[in-house]
Amino acid sequence: MILTDEQRLDWLRLIRSEKVGPRTFRALVNQYGGAAAAREALPAPARRGGRLMLKVCSRAEAEKETAAAARLGVRFIAMGEPDYPKTLKAIDSAPPLIAVRGSAAIMARPSVAIIGSRNASASGLTFAERLSRQLGEAGYVVVSGLARGIDTKAHKASLESGTVAVLAGGHDRIYPAQNEPLLQAIVEQGGAVVSEMPMGWEPRGRDFPRRNRIVSGLSYGVVVVEAARRSGSLITARFALEQGREVFAVPGSPLDPRAEGTNDLIRDGATLCAGIEHVTSVLEPLIASGPDLDRGAEEPQHVIGVEELWDELDLPDVVRAPTRPVAPDAGFDEERGEAEGDLTVFLGPSPVAIDDLVRQSGLSIRNVQMALLELEMAGRLERHGGNAVSLIVGS
Amino acid sequence: MILTDEQRLDWLRLIRSEKVGPRTFRALVNQYGGAAAAREALPAPARRGGRLMLKVCSRAEAEKETAAAARLGVRFIAMGEPDYPKTLKAIDSAPPLIAVRGSAAIMARPSVAIIGSRNASASGLTFAERLSRQLGEAGYVVVSGLARGIDTKAHKASLESGTVAVLAGGHDRIYPAQNEPLLQAIVEQGGAVVSEMPMGWEPRGRDFPRRNRIVSGLSYGVVVVEAARRSGSLITARFALEQGREVFAVPGSPLDPRAEGTNDLIRDGATLCAGIEHVTSVLEPLIASGPDLDRGAEEPQHVIGVEELWDELDLPDVVRAPTRPVAPDAGFDEERGEAEGDLTVFLGPSPVAIDDLVRQSGLSIRNVQMALLELEMAGRLERHGGNAVSLIVGS
Repeated sequence: MILTDEQRLDWLRLIRSEKVGPRTFRALVNQYGGAAAAREALPAPARRGGRLMLKVCSRAEAEKETAAAARLGVRFIAMGEPDYPKTLKAIDSAPPLIAVRGSAAIMARPSVAIIGSRNASASGLTFAERLSRQLGEAGYVVVSGLARGIDTKAHKASLESGTVAVLAGGHDRIYPAQNEPLLQAIVEQGGAVVSEMPMGWEPRGRDFPRRNRIVSGLSYGVVVVEAARRSGSLITARFALEQGREVFAVPGSPLDPRAEGTNDLIRDGATLCAGIEHVTSVLEPLIASGPDLDRGAEEPQHVIGVEELWDELDLPDVVRAPTRPVAPDAGFDEERGEAEGDLTVFLGPSPVAIDDLVRQSGLSIRNVQMALLELEMAGRLERHGGNAVSLIVGS
Repeated sequence: MILTDEQRLDWLRLIRSEKVGPRTFRALVNQYGGAAAAREALPAPARRGGRLMLKVCSRAEAEKETAAAARLGVRFIAMGEPDYPKTLKAIDSAPPLIAVRGSAAIMARPSVAIIGSRNASASGLTFAERLSRQLGEAGYVVVSGLARGIDTKAHKASLESGTVAVLAGGHDRIYPAQNEPLLQAIVEQGGAVVSEMPMGWEPRGRDFPRRNRIVSGLSYGVVVVEAARRSGSLITARFALEQGREVFAVPGSPLDPRAEGTNDLIRDGATLCAGIEHVTSVLEPLIASGPDLDRGAEEPQHVIGVEELWDELDLPDVVRAPTRPVAPDAGFDEERGEAEGDLTVFLGPSPVAIDDLVRQSGLSIRNVQMALLELEMAGRLERHGGNAVSLIVGS
């Protein structure tokens, strides 16, 4: 499927609206039958969930962002479109839209993430450089986060063979600034730069872990070259595990704090990587046998419809259930009080599966979904992996 | 059981006779009902196996070695005696006699081997020192090979808590000579020095791997701190695996050749060791639950008899079968031609299980054992782990 310009603008407006993340985006489109219908319905549930108002992205704002992106050579690719990477589509919280600069086609090639410390050791940097060059020569695209240290080495060593950088901020807010020339080189030499964040967005601390799920999501495997304990690279490794991707870690001396994280990963079951063969011997069979990531690749190209979208997303049935387009607010008001009232009893700060909520509340799946959407739009609900939700404490 | 002085001399004479190693010693005692009877029978099978003569250790030689040992404070401990370490007794090729200087009792405490490169890196040495000290503080005895580098550090850091050095040569032929003061300190501070080799024996290249099986055999686990590929430390690790002991390896940078062996070990399944807790968490349950190593500990003390010896050794049934004492040569001559003649057809340079020999030759277990003993005494047979044998090519 390929979106029309109008649909793409609708997708952008919905994902850029306040409180709408990838999971809420899916749930809203599911509930209302499309991005435009969901957006039009936004204020109503938000008010009912306990807040007065919620900022919805205007058409003018979306047009302005699209124009600013175009000036930088950035285009928006929607999940389900041919250029959207299949590896990324397979993850639980795949961004509905990615902003891509450079060659989107490169992301269709087998890819490996190489990540690690910003303050890497000389041997860590040397190893990252060697591994990245060798993986490039072996036909792999190298994915990383454009950070100082290991990331920078990994990108530089794979410039010619092809590399993908994932940003934590907007395409016009490169961090660190010193890597702007590197980013330029990536684009010029046929690589790609990816962000899910709006143009103009300055990356903040919490945007980096969020970005890391895309680094791993774009890759068949993640190689952690050096990482201290509790470092961002370990977050990426955790995402990779949750996403069913291979995790590789490069060992180091126990006396080097920069190896504590990677040594821990190996003890936890990551594959020890001391050379390219340790990566390729694991990934080649996965790539050759056509992994799960390729689900839906054979579907006909067409304009997006609700049924097809959810088929592609391969969501659990409980979320899929109400696929018939619903008019905004229809069958909503008359059940609201009962639904939300009963549901919060079953919710707390610990995540609970929506399946269990349905069973324990005795409500219909549809009513549970409605009530959760209301809470979510009011900022009172957090969605987790495994189709689970929790109440935000103090809200 | 405790040997009489006379029995101890018989054991020493048998194990010091030409072509008699630990496995042959067991087989001979098995066959002839005791060390003295076996020794008296030695020349006969040797002649029949194809050689004219075989050097048997004389009583005078054995008395001379015992006296020389005593002057250094070295005493001989026989397998099955209370001071013989239970860990060592459990291995396939346990030495029938060990020569021990210092405190034999220390070997009854839980022990860990720390081994590694002679040309270790500074961080390898530092880690070995730290781990050895901490294991000593935690109540473990540290076993090593008195070599330069890692071994030396491991011994020095555990001098006060207790350490055991295993020699590749005789007690009066310390290698390397520079470590004589260290050896002295080990003995003075309550540690032990162990050798299975005769007094006066200069260690040669092949004695070191042979010694390494005792290093691992004395230990619940072996920690390899640094090791290049194809190094002696990896031989010790292989022995440890064959002996059912835990193998730990300290990781290092893939750019450091001294870490190639340890990184390989981790990839092959050794436990990554970056701190003492990685060792103790694995060994504590083994030690607490009374491991296999303790089999036979409850047996009454008595002078050794054939049945009891084999019960303690826990050999496979095929070796145990003929437990009734046999007079030298009895039931031997009349079957010899047929037995050996038929058997060599089934033997070659590749190891074959004795079970399979019995099955394929159609001979009785006893006749197969007899024929093998003859070949062995003639230097034409090699015994392997897993109760297998092979013909020495060109013999």
